[in-house]
Amino acid sequence: MRYWPIAAQEAVLEERQVMRLCLIQSRRHEEAGKIQVLTLEEREQLLPMLHNSQWSEVVGRDALYKEFVFKDFNQAFGFMSRVALQAEKMDHHPEWFNVYNKVHITLSTHECGGLSKRDITLATFIDQVSVL
Amino acid sequence: MRYWPIAAQEAVLEERQVMRLCLIQSRRHEEAGKIQVLTLEEREQLLPMLHNSQWSEVVGRDALYKEFVFKDFNQAFGFMSRVALQAEKMDHHPEWFNVYNKVHITLSTHECGGLSKRDITLATFIDQVSVL
Amino acid sequence: MRYWPIAAQEAVLEERQVMRLCLIQSRRHEEAGKIQVLTLEEREQLLPMLHNSQWSEVVGRDALYKEFVFKDFNQAFGFMSRVALQAEKMDHHPEWFNVYNKVHITLSTHECGGLSKRDITLATFIDQVSVL
Amino acid sequence: MRYWPIAAQEAVLEERQVMRLCLIQSRRHEEAGKIQVLTLEEREQLLPMLHNSQWSEVVGRDALYKEFVFKDFNQAFGFMSRVALQAEKMDHHPEWFNVYNKVHITLSTHECGGLSKRDITLATFIDQVSVL
Repeated sequence: MRYWPIAAQEAVLEERQVMRLCLIQSRRHEEAGKIQVLTLEEREQLLPMLHNSQWSEVVGRDALYKEFVFKDFNQAFGFMSRVALQAEKMDHHPEWFNVYNKVHITLSTHECGGLSKRDITLATFIDQVSVL
Repeated sequence: MRYWPIAAQEAVLEERQVMRLCLIQSRRHEEAGKIQVLTLEEREQLLPMLHNSQWSEVVGRDALYKEFVFKDFNQAFGFMSRVALQAEKMDHHPEWFNVYNKVHITLSTHECGGLSKRDITLATFIDQVSVL
Repeated sequence: MRYWPIAAQEAVLEERQVMRLCLIQSRRHEEAGKIQVLTLEEREQLLPMLHNSQWSEVVGRDALYKEFVFKDFNQAFGFMSRVALQAEKMDHHPEWFNVYNKVHITLSTHECGGLSKRDITLATFIDQVSVL
Repeated sequence: MRYWPIAAQEAVLEERQVMRLCLIQSRRHEEAGKIQVLTLEEREQLLPMLHNSQWSEVVGRDALYKEFVFKDFNQAFGFMSRVALQAEKMDHHPEWFNVYNKVHITLSTHECGGLSKRDITLATFIDQVSVL
């Protein structure tokens, strides 16, 4: 089961255009210190690892999605507390859904409407603490 | 913006039938100590208060839904921690979505696929801690 | 390093007397449904396991004490969140101290000023989640 | 009731000397970007506000201490979750003790064994969220 903003489908074409523009801007602002979407080279290098650990691409958004199942709510919310602390430290917050022992996480960088290195870093952290 | 299980629409007719059965069973098992969906009388008495405080009914499910907006992630997750402690104490857990300062909560009682008194109790608690 | 209420030493003799009274009352109220301090038989049976996993007895109190060291604050507070959820569920709360990656926990049952079965249950839960 | 490391008293004279050295070093390294203990001028300017809001000085340590009492454990741990998120964000963590509705917090900056501007910032944040 996959949770989705109802308005998402309508936003697909628009977002794809934004992402294309982001990729172009990404090159331009590379020295400007702004958060940038991943370059094609970075995508080829970094995303296969995350796909191997069950992060999937989201249809119509430049985002990563993964579903976690824990033993119970105690374990699920303990996991969420650790992710929350890390997210606040990075100033980079997940979109996430929880019910009882399930946690569904979507990662994307709001500033440019697409995946940035921050998402890779947070996804890697999330994977580490999810197995504890 | 409203977040929804993609499969929800297909489940609408089926769930309505389940709810009707639940209401019938509710009368039968009233003394059995099982968690029961609210009776029509209880609905008329209890739901208007929650509707007044912005809990809305969910299309196609016997559930309550409310969106909260906080100052920042710190305040939103502090709120979630308090709701989590109460949920675990009641053994009654919300379906909830969070991104940064937004928390969207759906309440329903899984055991009978509809609203029970537990949802009213949890909704009331959530309202209390959301204004702190 | 061991953290201590300053007034603890003065309370030692008094608490020992209270504990002796509790043990006597424990027999009397056994059927009354009240929370009771462990009987001598229960102590002989249950405490050695906890002593083996580094829970030590507190001088001057009928209580258990253990120090935990984690990798960092993230791991320590994730652990504390899980213990908090369980404590609230049991309505039985630890006395605990934290700084960065260290968590020091004292368990005792306030109602009778001594160890009860609840402390054994909570200590066992704490040990389980501390190794995750 | 005041909770204290047993070894604290022995460390008093030593720590006072360290603090004096810190104050001297504080001037020297002012441009070096290191965390520094508050200067005497900063103390005169910043500490009275915190003393007014019940932060007291700790005997034998250059630290601030305050006791908080909440309605119940739910409120106390919700407060702690918010402080934890802020502490992790600042990479500046409190020494704190909790039992049920009580939270006792000691703030000091480990790097130089004394109060720094980080402690003032964290104390101010703690006061803000404690009244919510």
